[in-house]
Amino acid sequence: MKIPSLILKQLYTMGSLESIPDGVQFGLKNRLSDATLTGISGIAIDGETVPLENVRLEASGKTYAPGEITSDQPIDFPLRKLMTVKVRGMELDIGKHTVGIDFAASPFGRLSFEVKDAIREHEEKRVTVPYDKEDNYNPEIIAKRQAFIESACDVSLEHVPQYSFDPEMLRGNIENFTGVAQIPIGFAGPLTVNGEHARGEFLIPLATTEGTLVASYNRGMKVLNLSGGVTCTVSDDRMQRAPVFVFDSAREARDFRDWVDEQFDPIRLAAEASSSVAKLQNIDTYLANKFAYLRFNYSTGDAAGQNMVGRATFAACSWILDNITTVRAFYLESNLATDKKHSQINLMRTRGKRVTAEAVIPKDVLVQHMRVEPQSLHYHASVANVGALISGANNNGCHSPNGITAMFIATGQDVANVAESSAGIIYTELTRDGDLYISLTIPSLIVATHGGGTGLATQRECLELLGCHGTGKVRKLAEIVGGVALAGEISLGAAISSLDWVSSHEKYGRNR
Amino acid sequence: MKIPSLILKQLYTMGSLESIPDGVQFGLKNRLSDATLTGISGIAIDGETVPLENVRLEASGKTYAPGEITSDQPIDFPLRKLMTVKVRGMELDIGKHTVGIDFAASPFGRLSFEVKDAIREHEEKRVTVPYDKEDNYNPEIIAKRQAFIESACDVSLEHVPQYSFDPEMLRGNIENFTGVAQIPIGFAGPLTVNGEHARGEFLIPLATTEGTLVASYNRGMKVLNLSGGVTCTVSDDRMQRAPVFVFDSAREARDFRDWVDEQFDPIRLAAEASSSVAKLQNIDTYLANKFAYLRFNYSTGDAAGQNMVGRATFAACSWILDNITTVRAFYLESNLATDKKHSQINLMRTRGKRVTAEAVIPKDVLVQHMRVEPQSLHYHASVANVGALISGANNNGCHSPNGITAMFIATGQDVANVAESSAGIIYTELTRDGDLYISLTIPSLIVATHGGGTGLATQRECLELLGCHGTGKVRKLAEIVGGVALAGEISLGAAISSLDWVSSHEKYGRNR
Amino acid sequence: MKIPSLILKQLYTMGSLESIPDGVQFGLKNRLSDATLTGISGIAIDGETVPLENVRLEASGKTYAPGEITSDQPIDFPLRKLMTVKVRGMELDIGKHTVGIDFAASPFGRLSFEVKDAIREHEEKRVTVPYDKEDNYNPEIIAKRQAFIESACDVSLEHVPQYSFDPEMLRGNIENFTGVAQIPIGFAGPLTVNGEHARGEFLIPLATTEGTLVASYNRGMKVLNLSGGVTCTVSDDRMQRAPVFVFDSAREARDFRDWVDEQFDPIRLAAEASSSVAKLQNIDTYLANKFAYLRFNYSTGDAAGQNMVGRATFAACSWILDNITTVRAFYLESNLATDKKHSQINLMRTRGKRVTAEAVIPKDVLVQHMRVEPQSLHYHASVANVGALISGANNNGCHSPNGITAMFIATGQDVANVAESSAGIIYTELTRDGDLYISLTIPSLIVATHGGGTGLATQRECLELLGCHGTGKVRKLAEIVGGVALAGEISLGAAISSLDWVSSHEKYGRNR
Amino acid sequence: MKIPSLILKQLYTMGSLESIPDGVQFGLKNRLSDATLTGISGIAIDGETVPLENVRLEASGKTYAPGEITSDQPIDFPLRKLMTVKVRGMELDIGKHTVGIDFAASPFGRLSFEVKDAIREHEEKRVTVPYDKEDNYNPEIIAKRQAFIESACDVSLEHVPQYSFDPEMLRGNIENFTGVAQIPIGFAGPLTVNGEHARGEFLIPLATTEGTLVASYNRGMKVLNLSGGVTCTVSDDRMQRAPVFVFDSAREARDFRDWVDEQFDPIRLAAEASSSVAKLQNIDTYLANKFAYLRFNYSTGDAAGQNMVGRATFAACSWILDNITTVRAFYLESNLATDKKHSQINLMRTRGKRVTAEAVIPKDVLVQHMRVEPQSLHYHASVANVGALISGANNNGCHSPNGITAMFIATGQDVANVAESSAGIIYTELTRDGDLYISLTIPSLIVATHGGGTGLATQRECLELLGCHGTGKVRKLAEIVGGVALAGEISLGAAISSLDWVSSHEKYGRNR
Repeated sequence: MKIPSLILKQLYTMGSLESIPDGVQFGLKNRLSDATLTGISGIAIDGETVPLENVRLEASGKTYAPGEITSDQPIDFPLRKLMTVKVRGMELDIGKHTVGIDFAASPFGRLSFEVKDAIREHEEKRVTVPYDKEDNYNPEIIAKRQAFIESACDVSLEHVPQYSFDPEMLRGNIENFTGVAQIPIGFAGPLTVNGEHARGEFLIPLATTEGTLVASYNRGMKVLNLSGGVTCTVSDDRMQRAPVFVFDSAREARDFRDWVDEQFDPIRLAAEASSSVAKLQNIDTYLANKFAYLRFNYSTGDAAGQNMVGRATFAACSWILDNITTVRAFYLESNLATDKKHSQINLMRTRGKRVTAEAVIPKDVLVQHMRVEPQSLHYHASVANVGALISGANNNGCHSPNGITAMFIATGQDVANVAESSAGIIYTELTRDGDLYISLTIPSLIVATHGGGTGLATQRECLELLGCHGTGKVRKLAEIVGGVALAGEISLGAAISSLDWVSSHEKYGRNR
Repeated sequence: MKIPSLILKQLYTMGSLESIPDGVQFGLKNRLSDATLTGISGIAIDGETVPLENVRLEASGKTYAPGEITSDQPIDFPLRKLMTVKVRGMELDIGKHTVGIDFAASPFGRLSFEVKDAIREHEEKRVTVPYDKEDNYNPEIIAKRQAFIESACDVSLEHVPQYSFDPEMLRGNIENFTGVAQIPIGFAGPLTVNGEHARGEFLIPLATTEGTLVASYNRGMKVLNLSGGVTCTVSDDRMQRAPVFVFDSAREARDFRDWVDEQFDPIRLAAEASSSVAKLQNIDTYLANKFAYLRFNYSTGDAAGQNMVGRATFAACSWILDNITTVRAFYLESNLATDKKHSQINLMRTRGKRVTAEAVIPKDVLVQHMRVEPQSLHYHASVANVGALISGANNNGCHSPNGITAMFIATGQDVANVAESSAGIIYTELTRDGDLYISLTIPSLIVATHGGGTGLATQRECLELLGCHGTGKVRKLAEIVGGVALAGEISLGAAISSLDWVSSHEKYGRNR
Repeated sequence: MKIPSLILKQLYTMGSLESIPDGVQFGLKNRLSDATLTGISGIAIDGETVPLENVRLEASGKTYAPGEITSDQPIDFPLRKLMTVKVRGMELDIGKHTVGIDFAASPFGRLSFEVKDAIREHEEKRVTVPYDKEDNYNPEIIAKRQAFIESACDVSLEHVPQYSFDPEMLRGNIENFTGVAQIPIGFAGPLTVNGEHARGEFLIPLATTEGTLVASYNRGMKVLNLSGGVTCTVSDDRMQRAPVFVFDSAREARDFRDWVDEQFDPIRLAAEASSSVAKLQNIDTYLANKFAYLRFNYSTGDAAGQNMVGRATFAACSWILDNITTVRAFYLESNLATDKKHSQINLMRTRGKRVTAEAVIPKDVLVQHMRVEPQSLHYHASVANVGALISGANNNGCHSPNGITAMFIATGQDVANVAESSAGIIYTELTRDGDLYISLTIPSLIVATHGGGTGLATQRECLELLGCHGTGKVRKLAEIVGGVALAGEISLGAAISSLDWVSSHEKYGRNR
Repeated sequence: MKIPSLILKQLYTMGSLESIPDGVQFGLKNRLSDATLTGISGIAIDGETVPLENVRLEASGKTYAPGEITSDQPIDFPLRKLMTVKVRGMELDIGKHTVGIDFAASPFGRLSFEVKDAIREHEEKRVTVPYDKEDNYNPEIIAKRQAFIESACDVSLEHVPQYSFDPEMLRGNIENFTGVAQIPIGFAGPLTVNGEHARGEFLIPLATTEGTLVASYNRGMKVLNLSGGVTCTVSDDRMQRAPVFVFDSAREARDFRDWVDEQFDPIRLAAEASSSVAKLQNIDTYLANKFAYLRFNYSTGDAAGQNMVGRATFAACSWILDNITTVRAFYLESNLATDKKHSQINLMRTRGKRVTAEAVIPKDVLVQHMRVEPQSLHYHASVANVGALISGANNNGCHSPNGITAMFIATGQDVANVAESSAGIIYTELTRDGDLYISLTIPSLIVATHGGGTGLATQRECLELLGCHGTGKVRKLAEIVGGVALAGEISLGAAISSLDWVSSHEKYGRNR
């Protein structure tokens, strides 16, 4: 089994060459797949071979001399495991050094690489947030951090420390955990959703601090229910990572692009080897100047998938770099993904889910419940559409990010994805009967029902009450979010059209 | 004192004409300023005068006959007060009706208007979230809602109900409050900020569920501190509402635009009369087809200000509509504001605060702490910039919305404003000494230290620990957020450039 | 052979039902492929069968009774041939009528269809430009038009009528030909091009009325030549038409999209049947609301190809509409093509040719010939790039459309394609030796060496002197245009950076 | 009278330091305003004073010793006059040298400055287009160029040399004039325009090589005429230049912006001193990173004005740079103008003329003449509008650049401005009577009736026949172009909606 060279170099772990009393140490981390270490045959620092008797390997609290590791006495080296290599009897100056290592691992075979790293200047100890390297989620260190913040900032934390869950569950979700933000949740609905995955009535948890938001969405849901519910459809589902390859010329970039097209199968294999979930759908390619931008599109199951597609694309790029020699530089991301940003490419070609919510609102329902004629709402949509063209807005509707954000916070989504998810395309038309057809397409709605924050305490409860926790539920959630967003469009659109907009803000007020 | 006609019509409150046993009732709400009611001289339904002996006014739990209200015996009619007018002895069919009312109020004088409203069909009682019209924030109704959700959704809410504050404080922030989302907060920093308002070291609360986020920002802050801190500057500060006026022709729209330019002073007076805080800076005008779009720019003190500028613009438009006759239709919003959306107009002309964070990172600091040469990071920025041009991204940097969102959640901002605040302009250059100048301009950062969610329990604590709670602090907060965002750009930019990016995600992992 | 129904209806030609003395007439036009007419078996107007003895068919100046057309005595019905059907003895009111026809054609078989058309109100004769229905390019009618213009506008046309070619060659290029615009041509160069198709030195014809343009491009070419010439690469080549299909719901639109993906082969066959040149590469699909937008990408040989891809896509859509029943409406164009407009989709996914021009300009050449240091030009490009992000420009360079337009006019291109061709992505970097790498990607350059205006008198000469007339030459032309555009970027970029910009305008002045 | 220092340096003219037999020479050019030279008191090369007896000044073919120029015997030094200074008896190496000069001019007083320039390497004579330094527009040099092109490219130029005008008139419009492109002109119309400046019927000259274009526009004009003509309105009129100033920090950039706002009056005076026509309306300011972008908006009379606003802004910047010390770098253009590009800023804030064309097309006219119902055309506009949002197009209409380009070529406009002028905002609505209101706003239409190519032979004739040649006519021309563009929208919109689109292309065909 051949390890791509880029991954090989990554075996040497970041930031780890450092002086220790009577020597130096550095890290070794397995980033590929489960293995066993079967031998260490050489270490060189700055090109000079180190006597192996001065070398020790530390793993899982045990210490090994190189001679103790053999194919008969292998030691475990599972994926993501970090080992530390210590070399006694040498001193390194501050500055750059080269570290070389030769070792054997099964089933990889014999591995050998050389990397550069630096010994940093000794810094004065700066004040930092208290941190426990071994276990950063235990009650003591959390309490220590709370005390530190209170003392350093001269505040009293009365509410932030009041969380109701075991902080252990936060491992992998946050560092330096100190407490919680308590965001109030109000419920709107029920909303009748006619999806392919979400079918029936749903009560909608909205976490927000903006007065009138829950009431406004509730009003829109009532109207949707009186119209037979909202029809929701997911039409695309993909997540991206977009590396860029730099060449000597545009011509080499173009030839590379053609080569990538031909090599799709092995690239896909390399990518998918890194994950049991991510499936590479296709690679969009974009050329400019001497750069080749590749936008990898994956399906990612119930996870949002940004991390898994990052790993998969890294593996794919490692394979690419091992198989072509014209690349001059490579970056794993290039602003074509485009993560945590709005972009036209997301709007056009989907990032996350592309979901459309639709309804036909009978004229009578609009007039009786929103005091507005279908024509007025439709006319407003037309005029606001010209407004969106002038302003260069990423959404020709009213405020879909309001409901989306409130649901994101409640259900443990990566809320920064509001950047992408804020795009929207609204379309209205009057039917022959004078009713209002209205639909909203959210072209890059990024949601998950697995991974990220979805398993946390309150977040999981909110997903559960929507029947959306766990695997096989992500499109259901996407449909519900789409339906909620449309409810808000109807409600605010009607309010603006009927001139009630300011007044509804007044009604539910603001504390001033 | 002349009341603009648009406001006059708004005195009649939304959705309120309804049948009651032996009669009908409707609402009357003061939307202008404090007053006293000094007489009711006439009510007409569908053009027919109602005998005043059949009329009763209800306010604050008391009932008055029209004759009991005189200039000698006025009753209080403060701003935002809702009164109910009941008319006995009449029955109205389902459908539209006209309601006219003549009354006197001091200091307004005699007022008279006529509006249309509809009696709705009797709907079957739909299941709704329990609601207490009188006091929707008391423990009983909250418990009732919790029970309702648990029963309706067949879930057990263990964590959502565990909040640590008095729900009374939520009045004006949320409807149908039922519990909280607990979003974990981790601390990064301290970060040394050299602002005009924020000066010194700040510990940064980040509310997020995305692993590595806190660690990554922390890493960037360390680099910034080692570079002497981050210099932050607020260069613009304004909030918008953008009504549109529809005309018979482009020529009338243009003439209207010219007229508005001339009438700026009275328009400003009308707008500012509605708020003690909002100040109208100027009005940008945009013409297309037969529409005139006016973008009102206000300063809004320490509040984000979306609501106050909505009210102020409504008042200004009321004045406009009373003083010009060519307008065919009017909508208070037109997608030029552009609230809760990214737009080029926000990027160009600022919405909220325009803040720039800058630093010069010494080459040694980058190499020792991030294992990356300044050239590599600079080169990546150049290549990613071409990527942003191709993808049509609203941000040529790496991920500023990550830090912004985490701070927004922690400090009680309107998180949906991530849509606007996600835009960013990054710029790097190599100095003559080979160091890295890097700066980030966030052109539409929407933050508040007063109003909205800023006064809630955990939110207020987070603002306080930043020294940013209350009045006169909003630019300080904007500077800190800008500095934090730059820390993230350095950290992720360096990670991508040094190929550590995937690995840092691995280190802090995801629970899988 | 089955004729798609949409094409069948198109057999009835536009605008042609009209009253004639003692009857009515309408047109019949073959839009599919060469055929012979072998019989007419029925005509019905407004549902009523017309006695065949009242019917006559006119074609190529001859008149036929239906009985004279049989499979033994067929008459020619070649592609694009228009026949006229006259029906005597009936009078139709102004307004809509239905026309039905049954006939036989080989190899199509028996055809039958019904269309609606209207008899127009008799209009007063308006003054129109003189027109000769039979031959609109003969000297008499041209002279008549010239006289008409002179008389109607009270001007004397001294120069417009002075063309040097036979107007017959304009058939298919312009209607109502009356004279010429004489656009001065200046020559710049020679320019050394290192393309894959264009290799060697080229003298560049630039048709412009803007002083300094030729001199400025000439200066840039000199610099390019001193740098070893400009390297040009075409990386994509495709032309689009983008129909839209309307459905009852988003779900049906999505299912249609999936169906189209599956039916790519027959759709391609249908499209390519309409043209010997156009080849369908693939179909990009975009969904929003209840609409499915299909962007057909074709290769089009040496023609720009807008017309051939229009026909091919029409044929493909005809096939689609015959094979699926859910479509509610269909339009052949939807603003995703996007013809004669700039769009992000063109920039991203190419319209016409995607061409990149590159060069490394030695520092000495820049300093000696342009009085500017590479750093200064590079710095300007960086600052102007931020400018382009703020302004939302479709080009972060200086003025590539200047050279492109001048070459388009000279070489007979469709000059309105400057809209698409104006986009550009410029990128500069300093090499290790302090020289300037500069490259320009024009993502949607629309050029042809065949068809359109390329065969006209002066246009053909300009193509010939570039060695670019005729088939197999279009990428050569694209490379030359790319190289010319880069010359202009260097020249103006250097002038701005060296402050000479205004002065160079002064030197070559303006007549004032 | 104080001369701004930037202009002072520009007195030394570009590219002119060069070796001559027995010495060197350089240029001196007056770029400010008419003056007389009253003395030369010192010349220094590379810091060494040159004996004045070795110096001679050449102007208008005469040679002066320094002593011959005194305040009693001044010599004329008018604006834009170039003098040559020759220094005998010195030899300069290839490379950079410093040139200093002291002289006196009335009314400027005594002037003194120092600039750097380089003596270039002697280049091998490259083949260049024949050029006559003294008079490049005489018949001999033109014939020489024609012969050169024919010989170098091995072509025969039969048509390019056939122009009908005196080449002298091209001075200031083109360099290296060699012949003409003959672009056929067809006439459409008449078109009834109801403008404020254009009133009545106009015959429209369209220079194009695209078959069906004239016919299609003609069809649209007929429909407009039957609808009472097209109503056209110019609502904005301004031209820009956008310099950028670079600072050490964002804070200095912001303070500069504030200072510029305060100094508007002197800046305006400086700008307007350079031109009798350009009037500075206002300066839009945009800040990002450490850059301050100033967008100067001018009115420019009947000229398009790009050159005059360049000069005026250069003068303004000279004043600025003399009055503030924080600027680190300055470029006269920054991609915020945005010349020869589409940009959102042009669309929003106008470049050139903002013109709207409107009409209400009666249902009967559409049905009878275009075989299309108003609803169908309106529906297409709605669907195509969503298409434009997806594609990120700069125009939600059909093809306005087609007509605009054809008129630009015919009337001597700067055709590269099609880049800006291609933007368009179309809006349709159905009236209560079922007719179609349609309007098109062209937000950045750049036209001139004076300057540029408007005075050339055929171009002037085409302007004259529109009654648009000369001063005071530019808005009239803008209105006519707007009306023509709307005609094309109706024609193509109807064709697409009625499925006739492909067929109309067939009818007028393409020569194949």
